[in-house]
Amino acid sequence: MTDSADVPGTLAGEPGISAEPRISAEQREREAEVTEQVLRSFADCAEPRLREVMQALVRHVHAFVREVRLTEDEWNRGIDFLTRTGHITDDRRQEFILLSDVLGVSMQTVAVNNEAYGEATEATVFGPFFVENSPEIEHGGDLAFGAVGEPCWVEGCVTDTDGSPLAGARIEVWEADEDGFYDTQYGDERTAARAHLSSDADGRFRFWALTPTPYPIPHDGPVGQLLAATGRSPMRASHLHFMVSAPGRRTLVTHIFVRGDALLASDAVFGVKESLIKDFHAQPPGTPTPDGRDLAGRGWSRVRFDIVLAPDGA
Amino acid sequence: MTDSADVPGTLAGEPGISAEPRISAEQREREAEVTEQVLRSFADCAEPRLREVMQALVRHVHAFVREVRLTEDEWNRGIDFLTRTGHITDDRRQEFILLSDVLGVSMQTVAVNNEAYGEATEATVFGPFFVENSPEIEHGGDLAFGAVGEPCWVEGCVTDTDGSPLAGARIEVWEADEDGFYDTQYGDERTAARAHLSSDADGRFRFWALTPTPYPIPHDGPVGQLLAATGRSPMRASHLHFMVSAPGRRTLVTHIFVRGDALLASDAVFGVKESLIKDFHAQPPGTPTPDGRDLAGRGWSRVRFDIVLAPDGA
Repeated sequence: MTDSADVPGTLAGEPGISAEPRISAEQREREAEVTEQVLRSFADCAEPRLREVMQALVRHVHAFVREVRLTEDEWNRGIDFLTRTGHITDDRRQEFILLSDVLGVSMQTVAVNNEAYGEATEATVFGPFFVENSPEIEHGGDLAFGAVGEPCWVEGCVTDTDGSPLAGARIEVWEADEDGFYDTQYGDERTAARAHLSSDADGRFRFWALTPTPYPIPHDGPVGQLLAATGRSPMRASHLHFMVSAPGRRTLVTHIFVRGDALLASDAVFGVKESLIKDFHAQPPGTPTPDGRDLAGRGWSRVRFDIVLAPDGA
Repeated sequence: MTDSADVPGTLAGEPGISAEPRISAEQREREAEVTEQVLRSFADCAEPRLREVMQALVRHVHAFVREVRLTEDEWNRGIDFLTRTGHITDDRRQEFILLSDVLGVSMQTVAVNNEAYGEATEATVFGPFFVENSPEIEHGGDLAFGAVGEPCWVEGCVTDTDGSPLAGARIEVWEADEDGFYDTQYGDERTAARAHLSSDADGRFRFWALTPTPYPIPHDGPVGQLLAATGRSPMRASHLHFMVSAPGRRTLVTHIFVRGDALLASDAVFGVKESLIKDFHAQPPGTPTPDGRDLAGRGWSRVRFDIVLAPDGA
């Protein structure tokens, strides 16, 4: 009964030597039967979508266990990891989202929900730092509100996929300061480095932000330990967050990244898309600003980001 | 760029009508690229087994997201489910193990780690109720220690897969009382309905236990809600736990189940194996007991369970 010679692709009698695991036909059948039993248990689920999702989850997780021949010790370590991830998670810290992010599950979900459509701007991860009711700024206004960093002039145009300008699109922008922190991470009530504005009659927008700088995701918990154990960095490539919405258009959640940033190829959450890497042109101290703003001799940068929105439901 | 006509197996221009999801070649490529990026991020992992496990996990979880076209709302519900599962988990309640159990992940792991070997007795889930240092009983002793339930005479023989008796095998036995609770669930310091003994010189054993009765897994948390939402029962089929170990033998963790139990086909954690269903013969009040014990006119039951241990490392 332990003879595996009848299973194509396996070698009998050479445990540990054959390229394929030595698994007997009876053993394969037992493993398959476990999965079948679990799939059947969801047959009476009244909600068809829930049934579909749970059955697919079971199939894929079971296939993972079988493929890697998960040991009981590894299973225990997995339970312990999830337990610690649950215990560090609270209203301010969401370690399960971090886990989803560093495994690229968040980006895969973003990809599935924002299908390629014509020249529509690509989406990327939302992240945990968006806040509702950000301050509104005028065109040419400054979203810093006291956040430290090099000024950065951002301009562009919002259009649909036919190239027609979209007036009145709501543009939300948020970012970390040059110390790598979002306002919400300071634990006081400050609102800084975030704002919203609307595209003008020609779809255009322009405002002052901060030149983005790199920062690590929170890495003092289980997810940080996982990154360390697997030789990965917790650093995110420098980026500026956007959320752009307009009637009849699919809301775009994205970032722009800084061409030349050494972290572009190793972003901890896989947010970087080639099409989202932009030229942030460095402007030496004294260079006149587009709106005549006096920067008191500081250097600044400028970037152009043209935004193309897909139709709703695309 | 949104034309999917070049993708075999999809129908262009009929979103929501074709049997296969309408996914363009460009979209497929984007989704595959996300997975590739994440797999590459683990390339520098110094520990080969950890790399293998993480890369396999990523491939399977990403395949799940793509296959079901997981919505962002569903992703959010998943994060919320894991968060609540983490928050209810403490030293006494392990909701992640329950989750693994009701998804059959525990049983699949048991299957992978206890490969079919000759006539070796099948393994099943360990469960959370085993306790080290149970009381030792003599042959014919009673493991009840005050736990309520109908007495059950259990006897059998421990052998190897060649049929040779194994003397001195350590046999741990534990079970719920007839109210459906293990001793550890009462929150006091009682030890009841658990014991260990050793097989005799001929590999035989015999003891008094309680006739097993069905009980629900803890279902007042997220896992219980999942079972309810999917139309599943939290009930476990009636069973008696065994852990049997002997030098040079693979330790067996298993249960025996009661033939005729209405719950055999719907055990909440998929622990039931046909080979583990045993005849518990009901004995009317007054039936003489095998060891002359006076049961004061109560009914009792008897069951035979012969245990076959695989070689270590099988």
